[in-house]
Parts: sequence; C-alpha cells; structure tokens
Amino acid sequence: MKIAVIGGTGDQGLGLAMRYAKSGEDVVIGSRKAEKAENAVAEIENILGHSMKNLEGLSNPDAAVVADMLILTVPLQAQRPTLDSIKEYVDGKILIDATAPLNSNIGGSPMEFIEVWEGSAAERTVAILKGKDVAVVSAYSNISSSSLMNHEKDIDCDCLVCGDDDEAKLKAMELVNKLPGVKAIDCGGISRSRIVEKITPLLIGLNIKNRTHYAGIRITGLDNK
Amino acid sequence: MKIAVIGGTGDQGLGLAMRYAKSGEDVVIGSRKAEKAENAVAEIENILGHSMKNLEGLSNPDAAVVADMLILTVPLQAQRPTLDSIKEYVDGKILIDATAPLNSNIGGSPMEFIEVWEGSAAERTVAILKGKDVAVVSAYSNISSSSLMNHEKDIDCDCLVCGDDDEAKLKAMELVNKLPGVKAIDCGGISRSRIVEKITPLLIGLNIKNRTHYAGIRITGLDNK
Repeated sequence: MKIAVIGGTGDQGLGLAMRYAKSGEDVVIGSRKAEKAENAVAEIENILGHSMKNLEGLSNPDAAVVADMLILTVPLQAQRPTLDSIKEYVDGKILIDATAPLNSNIGGSPMEFIEVWEGSAAERTVAILKGKDVAVVSAYSNISSSSLMNHEKDIDCDCLVCGDDDEAKLKAMELVNKLPGVKAIDCGGISRSRIVEKITPLLIGLNIKNRTHYAGIRITGLDNK
Repeated sequence: MKIAVIGGTGDQGLGLAMRYAKSGEDVVIGSRKAEKAENAVAEIENILGHSMKNLEGLSNPDAAVVADMLILTVPLQAQRPTLDSIKEYVDGKILIDATAPLNSNIGGSPMEFIEVWEGSAAERTVAILKGKDVAVVSAYSNISSSSLMNHEKDIDCDCLVCGDDDEAKLKAMELVNKLPGVKAIDCGGISRSRIVEKITPLLIGLNIKNRTHYAGIRITGLDNK
C-alpha cells in the first residue's frame, strides 16, 4: 500500500509523511509543484538525518495516481483547487480529509471555526468528488502538527475518525493507529465531522492560552459498560 | 457558600446536587414546583441511604434567592422560562450554565447539535439576563450524567469551562474541581461555548455506538511546553 499526502508540504502533511515513512510505509508527498514536494522530502531527510528510500516527492496529480490511500492536508482555501487537480485519479481509492474550516483561512483567528455550506470540510470534499468512486473519511484534524513533527516522541491523543463507508473507515483507522500513541476513535458517519472539525480551533485556543503546541484530546469511558 | 441547582431534578442536576452535597457543600435543588424539588432530595437521600442535612428542595426562585452560586441544568426549551423565573434574584451571583443545544430538544436526535441565534446556549443565557449584575460561566455540559449519578466512582473526564469574567470563572473552576476525578480546563471566553457545547452530542453519539453511558473527554498536552 502506498500513501500519498496531498498538499503535504505544511507541518501537518510533513509530520504525517515523516511518521508514516519512519514506520515503514511507502509514502509520497504531493504538492502543486513537484519541486516543492521534493524539497519537503529533503526537509524530512534532513530532520531524520538520513535518506528515506520509501519517501518521494511528486506533483499532487502524480502522487494521487501512484497511491492507494490519499491524505488531504491543505488549508480550506486550497481544498477545491487541490481536489480538482487530482479528481481524475481517485477512483477506487480512499481519501482521508484532514481539513478544518478555521476563521484564519479567511483572514480571521485560528481559534474560531467558520461554517461551510456542506456542514463540514469533509462533506465539502464528498460534494466536490461527487460521481467519483472514492470513499471519503475524515481524520487527523485534532492531532497537533507539532506533535506529528516531534517524531521522536509518542503522540498523546486520540484521533477522531468519521466516514460513511465502514470498510474504508476501518482501513483509515488502521493507518491512524500506526501513529505511535494515537488511538483511532470511530465517531460515526461523515456528517459527524461537523462536530469533530470544530475541536481544532478549541485546541488551538488551548495551545495559545497555555503557551504550548501539543494540546490534544482523549476520549474516556468507552470501555465502562 | 450555598449552591443552587436550578431545574435540578433531571439526572445532570441530581448528579451534581448529590456530588456536591456528598462533598459537604450546602446545596439546594430548585424546580418549577417545590414539591418536585423535595422529591428529588428524597431520591438522593434514598440513593445515599441516609438523610442529608446540607441538601434541601425549593422552588427555582426560592433556590436562587438563598444561593450564592447557581447552576442551570435544564433542557434548552426550558432555558428561557426558567431564567425568567429567577431573573429577579441573580444580581451579584455567579450562574453556571450547563445547557447544550441538542436536536433532541426539538424532537430530533441527541447526537446532533442545533444552532441557537446567540451562538451558544451560554451566550443565550447572557442575552436573557442582560442588564443583570450576574457573571455567566459555562461548564458541565461535557460530563456524562451517568458519571455524575454513579456517585461511588470518580469521574474520568475533564470539564471545559468558559466565561468572560475571570474571577467568576476561577470560582466556577474551583467548584468543578471538587468533583472527584474531574479537572477544570479554562477554555477562554463565553463564546468558546459555541465549540464546547457541541462536544455533548459527539459524546452522546460515542455512548450509543459503544453501548455505554460514560464517554467523556480529557485534554492532553497542556503541560508539554
């Protein structure tokens, strides 16, 4: 299985690519320009202190073509153009959307959410890819990018996962569980992302208030029957 | 200090009243009719197996008069009439709003939130009490009522607290921290309740999916500087 981190040159994408490459997965970083993706690979190799044979950089469309599982890590304003650029190549694949609709995407505060018409960024991805044979799952939006980048440490949080296709969601959860310390929590159908994505600005607010970058959430009580 | 749990005859109110009475606070349960509040006191005494000298039942207005700190635990549809009934007596006090705007309040699913005009139930309370010298804080909406009622066990979750009056928020957080196992987390101003209140239907969904009643959240990473 090959994983493409589409729009993977920001901290969230870099962190996921680094974590998964380190754990032995075949990973390709996608970017609008292949050169930027190659630079991102070099950046990760620089952080790790050695080259990675299972990590490469390609344009977003080329990355989408070669991978089985796509992770979308772009800011909201890049969601539609990025999806449009890979749309042709998503059939038969799983796309994990990590977008959170933040006020900072339109010039406001990252501590505040904005409402998108479809209800959530993940449902917006479903709408943009309508007619395609792709299973959209949402995940990762509540994991701090700094925690992902801090690759020598386990990540102390759960990851809330939503999706309408149970089989695809299960595969996405398996991938999530490969992040050391992280536990995937099945939160139900894709519309549950309307809640989950709003937790991101709450955590960013807690980071700012507590002068840290590592706020996360754990779900408790699920085994208490 | 006396605590009034206004509209305190449901599981959330009963649980809070029982926990605080057990921990030695002076508690009064308020209800639309004093008789119902007295029955709630009897119910708690029955659960605990003995009478409680520091717990009484009164009408909501009478409860508001005698208490210093008010906790509002009513469903959304009862928020305005209940606040109208105690409005006269809130000056100089702290009111902790525990309301979450759920679709079930208007005949839908408790796993879904609804949007109120003011942004959150807590801000709605602020609007309803406009002109009064009362400090509104929001808290408790993400603690499971079953966990509160399960009085022999510690509660395994944090409690997200929001409010614009820092002094009042601090006092509310002190009260929250008296619940065994619970840690109060300062989430910022009252408008942050727009996010916090939406976590309730997420947890209810997780309860239903996992056939439990005890889902809660913990915030991680705040001490990781």
